[in-house]
Amino acid sequence: MMLKEIAEKISKAGKIAILPHISADGDALGSCLALGLALRKAGKDVAVFSEEEVPAVYGFLPGLDMLKVYKSGGCEAEETVSGCKSGKDECSMDIMPFDLVIALDTGDMDRLGKRAALFNSTENTVNIDHHTTNTEFAAINYVDVHASAVGEIIYRLVEIMGISLDRDISTCLYVAISTDTGGFRYSNTTSDTHRIAANLVDRGIDVAAISQRVFDSTSLPKVRLMGEVINSLELLQDGKVAFCAVTREMLEKSGAKEEDCDGLVNIGRNIEGVEVSVLLKQLDHKLVKANLRSKEYVDVAAIANIFNGGGHKRAAGFTFEGQIDDIKNRILDKIGEVLK
Amino acid sequence: MMLKEIAEKISKAGKIAILPHISADGDALGSCLALGLALRKAGKDVAVFSEEEVPAVYGFLPGLDMLKVYKSGGCEAEETVSGCKSGKDECSMDIMPFDLVIALDTGDMDRLGKRAALFNSTENTVNIDHHTTNTEFAAINYVDVHASAVGEIIYRLVEIMGISLDRDISTCLYVAISTDTGGFRYSNTTSDTHRIAANLVDRGIDVAAISQRVFDSTSLPKVRLMGEVINSLELLQDGKVAFCAVTREMLEKSGAKEEDCDGLVNIGRNIEGVEVSVLLKQLDHKLVKANLRSKEYVDVAAIANIFNGGGHKRAAGFTFEGQIDDIKNRILDKIGEVLK
Repeated sequence: MMLKEIAEKISKAGKIAILPHISADGDALGSCLALGLALRKAGKDVAVFSEEEVPAVYGFLPGLDMLKVYKSGGCEAEETVSGCKSGKDECSMDIMPFDLVIALDTGDMDRLGKRAALFNSTENTVNIDHHTTNTEFAAINYVDVHASAVGEIIYRLVEIMGISLDRDISTCLYVAISTDTGGFRYSNTTSDTHRIAANLVDRGIDVAAISQRVFDSTSLPKVRLMGEVINSLELLQDGKVAFCAVTREMLEKSGAKEEDCDGLVNIGRNIEGVEVSVLLKQLDHKLVKANLRSKEYVDVAAIANIFNGGGHKRAAGFTFEGQIDDIKNRILDKIGEVLK
Repeated sequence: MMLKEIAEKISKAGKIAILPHISADGDALGSCLALGLALRKAGKDVAVFSEEEVPAVYGFLPGLDMLKVYKSGGCEAEETVSGCKSGKDECSMDIMPFDLVIALDTGDMDRLGKRAALFNSTENTVNIDHHTTNTEFAAINYVDVHASAVGEIIYRLVEIMGISLDRDISTCLYVAISTDTGGFRYSNTTSDTHRIAANLVDRGIDVAAISQRVFDSTSLPKVRLMGEVINSLELLQDGKVAFCAVTREMLEKSGAKEEDCDGLVNIGRNIEGVEVSVLLKQLDHKLVKANLRSKEYVDVAAIANIFNGGGHKRAAGFTFEGQIDDIKNRILDKIGEVLK
């Protein structure tokens, strides 16, 4: 399947729905809004349906007036961005049925959540993605595993459709690409990634303001939680293993939520000499979630497998029924065996 | 002055010395080593002289065997990278006199420190820089204030000289450009910056490994100090002002050095709702150093001026004789007057 065929399919449709995956991130949201803005420019009637409210960090994205939080049998028009009222106050479902439904950055149908019903409301479905695990669940599937972000694919699609890139579309694409490459730092960053970024910068996007919001903005509870986690930090096994814990008390004391734990496992991983970093989170009184990261040679997916978890060689995890103290030494022992 | 004329000047020289500014950063070191590697490829006899040991974070840069720490009347050949022995164990000064001396990323002669003597040992001097404040102190001066980094200028110079970019030169240039743009996040990032980065990535550089070393690598004492600073964090004036302190006790407890304080003022600045962040460091029993940062509208240089300091609108500082408690309320009062 070529992008040109998808462009032709789009050109024949009038009413189009675009869907990011559940727990939409920067690439999913940025790609959906960029495509939505471009198609609106081309005269299409477009709606973007998310599973949940948009995280506040993405509240500045252009095109959010097109976005509705989907609810089965209707949609939630009250709040689309965490804490912010939507631009429209009525439900966009009045434009149903859709001529075309497009899922972006979505590896399989499960990642559409409740919106699977909306996706299946037409036979004209498109799936554009870059995950190697994509199940090709749509009528038309375009999966480019070499694209650092779906934003790169949407950039090419918009180009093929002959829709001119403007500042708003470019801002959405830049957020998509820069977040999925960790700010051009991950190994998925290619020369194409930088060439596309160059063209987006040429459209007048505010790189510094976007970067500040996307990468550097944090909350007081998250900073307080970081302080608590650092207080709990232990270097073990000749400094090769970093261990941190997040207890219910730490979450309560800092006022942080579970999502504020994202990235905290990297505090340990980034310390010179550390090969494996472990973060254990006490989710409730009975469940512990473990995040494992390694730097150069330890396969943490293999360690997570022992505890019925999984992931990648350098980033893996598992959940465990019990308390942090029940699992801590068991996992440290397993890591110690690998490091021997 | 055109880069072509500098290329011609270089082509006529045999022995060339290249100098970064004092306290050389990623752009200064990366640019010097990239130019050194390129000129060595062109058959030149090249030495890079730094004022101090190279920070350990840059110890992986290719070409460090060309670098010597300069000492007046000779050079220090023992250690060029903090904690690492140099590749050569004798002094490169035996190649003096130099046909040409090139200063990179150096705004004025003061920024050459002791190496001003070496710079003035010949009349054939070149100054390549991107600072608006450059004093054009050399015989030939090339100052491009639109270049995000001197690395961009060296990229063009190497291209003009017809020297093929290889992986090592590209790695040095990538470090130069990525560090001076804060990883392509600062407002100095242009489309040219990304186009050059694309060409460097095409030379097979390891983006992920370089980024991990340059941006994410930290030390246990620095992490511990960060924890202490977060513990000291106060949000004041309706959450618009973040205040942190670094005491002698905190440095001793964490085992951190003063240089580990770099960037800590941003912890407060990055919190949602904060406009001004203040970090006060008790350098010794009599001296306090203040770092001020603002996000959108407060001119912190004006505030620093009141205390005989200076800087930019969004980043400024000053030193004060006394204790943290003597100056804390005075500075918070001044910030409060501006925020009213």
